[in-house]
Amino acid sequence: MGGDRQQRFDPRGQGFRSLAPVADVLARIDATVGPLGVEPVRLADAAGRVLAAETRAAADIPPFDRSAMDGFAVRGRDVQAAGPEAPAALRVIGEARPGRPFSGVVGPGEAVDITTGAPLPAGADAVVRVEATVAAAGLVRVVEPTPVGRHVGRRGEDIAAGTVVLRAGRVLRPQDLGALSALGRAEVPVVRRPAVAVVITGDELLPPGTPAVDSRIADTNSVMLMALIARDGGLARVVGPVRDDRATLRDAIAAAARSADAVLVSGGSSTGAEDHAPGIVADLGTLEFHGVALRPASPAGLGRIGEVPVVLLPGNPVSCLCAYDFFAGRVVRRLGGRASGWSYVACRARLARPIASAVDRVDYVRVLLADGRAEPITSGGASILSSATRADGFLVVPADVPGLAAGDEVVVWRYDPPVGATVS
Amino acid sequence: MGGDRQQRFDPRGQGFRSLAPVADVLARIDATVGPLGVEPVRLADAAGRVLAAETRAAADIPPFDRSAMDGFAVRGRDVQAAGPEAPAALRVIGEARPGRPFSGVVGPGEAVDITTGAPLPAGADAVVRVEATVAAAGLVRVVEPTPVGRHVGRRGEDIAAGTVVLRAGRVLRPQDLGALSALGRAEVPVVRRPAVAVVITGDELLPPGTPAVDSRIADTNSVMLMALIARDGGLARVVGPVRDDRATLRDAIAAAARSADAVLVSGGSSTGAEDHAPGIVADLGTLEFHGVALRPASPAGLGRIGEVPVVLLPGNPVSCLCAYDFFAGRVVRRLGGRASGWSYVACRARLARPIASAVDRVDYVRVLLADGRAEPITSGGASILSSATRADGFLVVPADVPGLAAGDEVVVWRYDPPVGATVS
Repeated sequence: MGGDRQQRFDPRGQGFRSLAPVADVLARIDATVGPLGVEPVRLADAAGRVLAAETRAAADIPPFDRSAMDGFAVRGRDVQAAGPEAPAALRVIGEARPGRPFSGVVGPGEAVDITTGAPLPAGADAVVRVEATVAAAGLVRVVEPTPVGRHVGRRGEDIAAGTVVLRAGRVLRPQDLGALSALGRAEVPVVRRPAVAVVITGDELLPPGTPAVDSRIADTNSVMLMALIARDGGLARVVGPVRDDRATLRDAIAAAARSADAVLVSGGSSTGAEDHAPGIVADLGTLEFHGVALRPASPAGLGRIGEVPVVLLPGNPVSCLCAYDFFAGRVVRRLGGRASGWSYVACRARLARPIASAVDRVDYVRVLLADGRAEPITSGGASILSSATRADGFLVVPADVPGLAAGDEVVVWRYDPPVGATVS
Repeated sequence: MGGDRQQRFDPRGQGFRSLAPVADVLARIDATVGPLGVEPVRLADAAGRVLAAETRAAADIPPFDRSAMDGFAVRGRDVQAAGPEAPAALRVIGEARPGRPFSGVVGPGEAVDITTGAPLPAGADAVVRVEATVAAAGLVRVVEPTPVGRHVGRRGEDIAAGTVVLRAGRVLRPQDLGALSALGRAEVPVVRRPAVAVVITGDELLPPGTPAVDSRIADTNSVMLMALIARDGGLARVVGPVRDDRATLRDAIAAAARSADAVLVSGGSSTGAEDHAPGIVADLGTLEFHGVALRPASPAGLGRIGEVPVVLLPGNPVSCLCAYDFFAGRVVRRLGGRASGWSYVACRARLARPIASAVDRVDYVRVLLADGRAEPITSGGASILSSATRADGFLVVPADVPGLAAGDEVVVWRYDPPVGATVS
């Protein structure tokens, strides 16, 4: 086997004749995978879901003028010149409370005891806050000038009828649910969550969390993939572990493609005699890519069965995580109407040691962060899952870069969600 | 009412005689609220949960030496000098697959066909990758020098028995579940999720998502608080809307405190005649703080009934969000064993316009972000929930600062989770 053949093989690419650029696989996903249909959800279940249609206010919020303070509803002309030396004395003719409005009319020289949020009574056009008053039997003395409009929340001042409040594609925030509630929306239309079938294959695999027995070991990828899929808004269902038998695996993948919006196959994705998954996808549908210039996930693939995207993930757990993050997660996010890119928090750091890569290959490198420095984890082969539990995050050596030097500024994508201080 | 009294009242502090510093309330929460007890969860449900005990590996991972490549298991001495010009010919005596080991011994001049992850057969100490071989009937010719140990994943190389793999307090990542699975852990001990009762009070309130009728409006805070509590790892239960009647509200709060790990009361938290919540907490337990120097959430409070923390949240929705983020969320996070601070992503920006504050008061200011500039939302009163749906995030004017100038560098806490590109 001469130099010619050597060069055609990536050291981690095993038996692939050629490896597809990561960017080509991403572009294919973006060109072919888009949001699923729409379903209604109850407001209480809508947080984090993706709004499927623009929401326009059907009515003004608030629906009436209301008091912004505890105090007295008055006619501003009566109190606009009031002050400590010249208090305005008003007759208290009733009270207004949230949900219990004052039904009369406030006339000249009159006031209505009012609390925050209560409808402003007819005739009143200002609210004097309680701290600017002195009470006396049946009377209130106003000791602060209070012009027309003061401390009144106008009808529609929060949201005017007809306003677009939230746009399609919005990932609903907690406060958005509050706004939708105020708009009278008990249900909202959201993009359906993608049903993702995860087919786990490997004769050696025991159910997750099972101690190893002889040469058989616990499946690690199903629990990891379920959590990743849930993070990206999908609904995961695990099939298997399925034996490395072509007919059995073919049936499992075909059934998964009939009942899911996307299929991920973990294991059997390389080029060996027992790597049945690529051939099965080619057989049942189209195998668009097999072998990607991505370390440590070159035995990854992308295809489709009918309209259902299928992502082939290497069985080695770090490779699986890497291929999920680049390809499968993108499929899940796009099906769910979410942004395509990573949801990891990025930070900048200085590289502590050089990283060798190869031109045309993307490298996914787990790193430790300390004092603004990113330290690559050296014992970080494709099978070393602890490299991804010990790491603070990962960096990527892009395809057009032959490597990185010590001291280079790099972007590190943190595995953990953000935690900040609370400013006070 | 003279200057003396004016100064004692914060304009948003309404009838409070004094307002507690935000830092004092935070310190009290930190001193009195800590993690709940431990419960086991199945691995598949453990993502995002807080690990309650250090996890130590009971066995080596992998549990046996294994192949890191598809190829041939050999004795390294047979092939360490092999090359294209001097291939080493070995007799293929069997095969090893994951879960189906080779049961014999590899002797001198012998090889076993092996795939990635399969146990290394006895006698073998290296793996020649398939690309470095040429097959012939019953034989394999090795054309690449392959020393002892090459392409062998050693027993324990991922995780050695006895290693601490994950520490107590860890928020479990997807890949952590994979590692725990490999360690044979079908269940893991995690901090119990706090049960949080949310008592909603207000005579004017209709159920969430109900169109306004006369002076009655939909409750917005329950759906918002449920989403916030879930985000912070709590299990929310809503009580109400409860009428603004002291006896009714007292019964509701007392019952909530008997059945929850924390109680949040939304509404009735100020100083008016119908603000029953503070008095009820004082009556049933201890009211530790009432009135906080925090705009727009001064009518907030903190207390406890027995051992159960109670947070009083203003009914105005922006105030409610603000008081949740400063105080209630911190209680929920600490009960659940999580970091106390905000989980919002922070970014830096230049302030587009000055912000007036007051010394000793913390201001929570919603801002729009564009081109690295933070633009405060001016129509952002306590009742204007759309200010928190339109905003990209918020900034905080700390208590020791009288205000901020245009051009000041500020930290903005983004309401939305991070979305990045995917590097290729």
